[in-house]
Amino acid sequence: MTDLADMTGWACPTPLRDHQRIVLGHGGGGVLTSELIEHLFLPAFAAGGSTARRDPAAALLDAASAASADAALADAAVLAVGGIRLAFTTDSYVVRPLFFPGGSIGELAVHGTVNDLACRGAVPLALSAGFILEEGLELAVLGRVAQAMGHAAAAAGVRLATGDTKVVERGLADGLYVNTSGVGLVPPGVDVRPDRAAPGDRIIVSGPIGEHGIAVLSVREGLEFGGDVRSDTAALHGLVAAMLAATIPGVHALRDPTRGGLATALCEIAAAAGAGVEFTESAVPVPPVVEAACGFLGLDPLHVACEGRLVAFVAEADTDAVLAAMRAHPAGRDAVVIGSVTAEHPGVVVARTAFGGTRIVDRPLGEQLPRIC
Amino acid sequence: MTDLADMTGWACPTPLRDHQRIVLGHGGGGVLTSELIEHLFLPAFAAGGSTARRDPAAALLDAASAASADAALADAAVLAVGGIRLAFTTDSYVVRPLFFPGGSIGELAVHGTVNDLACRGAVPLALSAGFILEEGLELAVLGRVAQAMGHAAAAAGVRLATGDTKVVERGLADGLYVNTSGVGLVPPGVDVRPDRAAPGDRIIVSGPIGEHGIAVLSVREGLEFGGDVRSDTAALHGLVAAMLAATIPGVHALRDPTRGGLATALCEIAAAAGAGVEFTESAVPVPPVVEAACGFLGLDPLHVACEGRLVAFVAEADTDAVLAAMRAHPAGRDAVVIGSVTAEHPGVVVARTAFGGTRIVDRPLGEQLPRIC
Repeated sequence: MTDLADMTGWACPTPLRDHQRIVLGHGGGGVLTSELIEHLFLPAFAAGGSTARRDPAAALLDAASAASADAALADAAVLAVGGIRLAFTTDSYVVRPLFFPGGSIGELAVHGTVNDLACRGAVPLALSAGFILEEGLELAVLGRVAQAMGHAAAAAGVRLATGDTKVVERGLADGLYVNTSGVGLVPPGVDVRPDRAAPGDRIIVSGPIGEHGIAVLSVREGLEFGGDVRSDTAALHGLVAAMLAATIPGVHALRDPTRGGLATALCEIAAAAGAGVEFTESAVPVPPVVEAACGFLGLDPLHVACEGRLVAFVAEADTDAVLAAMRAHPAGRDAVVIGSVTAEHPGVVVARTAFGGTRIVDRPLGEQLPRIC
Repeated sequence: MTDLADMTGWACPTPLRDHQRIVLGHGGGGVLTSELIEHLFLPAFAAGGSTARRDPAAALLDAASAASADAALADAAVLAVGGIRLAFTTDSYVVRPLFFPGGSIGELAVHGTVNDLACRGAVPLALSAGFILEEGLELAVLGRVAQAMGHAAAAAGVRLATGDTKVVERGLADGLYVNTSGVGLVPPGVDVRPDRAAPGDRIIVSGPIGEHGIAVLSVREGLEFGGDVRSDTAALHGLVAAMLAATIPGVHALRDPTRGGLATALCEIAAAAGAGVEFTESAVPVPPVVEAACGFLGLDPLHVACEGRLVAFVAEADTDAVLAAMRAHPAGRDAVVIGSVTAEHPGVVVARTAFGGTRIVDRPLGEQLPRIC
């Protein structure tokens, strides 16, 4: 049994050496999460890539599938198989508390995964549901969460097609965690991915930011922020379909700014596209209650999670048409242009401030809002 | 905020009323798990089925997809989309300990999901990986698990295509949990599902049973069972492909006997097929170390999990050809016929004992081997 947990052959990658152990920030969706993906998961998972290529099964994936490496572990992957393009994504949900103003872990688990598919331009088809339940969880809580998932899936027109249930001993979970994975169909011609963002693109935000994060914090910390705030949790594939109806080639990149907020979404797309991003801070729709709560808590609204918003990178010539299509859709009626993509300062996101200056916008390190989704 | 965790509208379904709270047995894969699926998840998830049908997105799923209801929440679903048939499945892995003789949670997470696809006759294409990590987990442990997943996926010729990482506070997980979901392609003509088992079918077990469960228990309880026992964890899609190469129509139903063991697999297929199962107890290959450990622990080997075996229901006329194909494959070299399907006693599984009598074989209630996978 010397093979049990034999760690001698595993060397901690240099960029991860500051942390010999997992910290909450590794799950924050920011820099630490990226480092874990880049330096731990991708090398481990890629170890057998060449082997897989030799296997007859791999031949079923069309050559174009190699392009899905762009999405590995970060977004929905797109697999070309049997003449269709399949989007495939996964997310686990560990939000605390399970119920919050405007929704629950059930709606999040459906909307979050639907939105990951939508941000590749895919029409969501089916979701899986994998539950990890804590011994002692009230059945009524599980029943409510399952109902929320059923209703959210029905409203989104997506089927909960397969599932799994595990139970762990009391104290080894926090009520329940749920994973949803999703498959969707990418319509012909649609090619939406972070690295298609290009200089000249206009950047559109679909609505007010930060409401989900502040709604969850309000109940978690028992705080009142001088206003009602509800999670913005919503499925966005209908909005995306409306945008693609306006123009297929003009929609270059989409991202739903969840963990790490709008700042992280902009930074990730800037990095993937090898281009700069510039936006006007005052153009970003921040509801007063989010502004107030962020002031109180010392948070930057640009770092606070949304669960029903997207940021779109659209060809300049198509911006008016896409914006009009978004505003005609309930999920995008407050859509606004906040900035554009530039050939300068590739990979860097710059905000123009109210005082006429500029500041560099970065991703949070990771730990500021644990378990927000 | 009256909507937060408002449980007044949720009524506990009658069959679940013995348990107002989740018990470990709800995750055991036996009767309690089935009850939770049937009475809690399926009604909640089906609540919006008709709505989904009206949504244009649902039209992308071919009508044949309705047949996948047989697999809802229990096995891989098969979705007909764009002229191909896609198998889709999910499993969360919470095995304790993370490393055991013959493997780790990493191999299990790849093999288990590959095998769920294979048991619908599908060629596995891609897996997702969703991690829930406990704050304080050693990076080296995570690194080892990720490497195990990478190697297992490479050996199986399947790609780890997309992923997600969440972190929860110290004490709210047990090191790490991982969910893998999988998509696969069902080849033309292949139609493998529990309800295709039919009277006259021969029942084949692919190899010795119970090694995974006993291997995990041996390290968990620090027991020695008078022999070396290693998990049988293995990918079975190669074996299934060999069986289908012998005959496509003759392979009626497949199941990998994981949680709940061979007994549960037989009972579930008998129930789905509305047919009886009869088998000879002495024909089931039980390794001496499994026999000894079960005697010591008071377990029935038929209830102990395998992670690299399958049970096949094959048309009588094709049995010899399928058996020969299995024995020619490394994963099936010890395959044996253990019994047959009968029109009598539908839904009931009967074992012929060594003493010439018979006994009814049932599923475990659920709690005897928690967290075995």
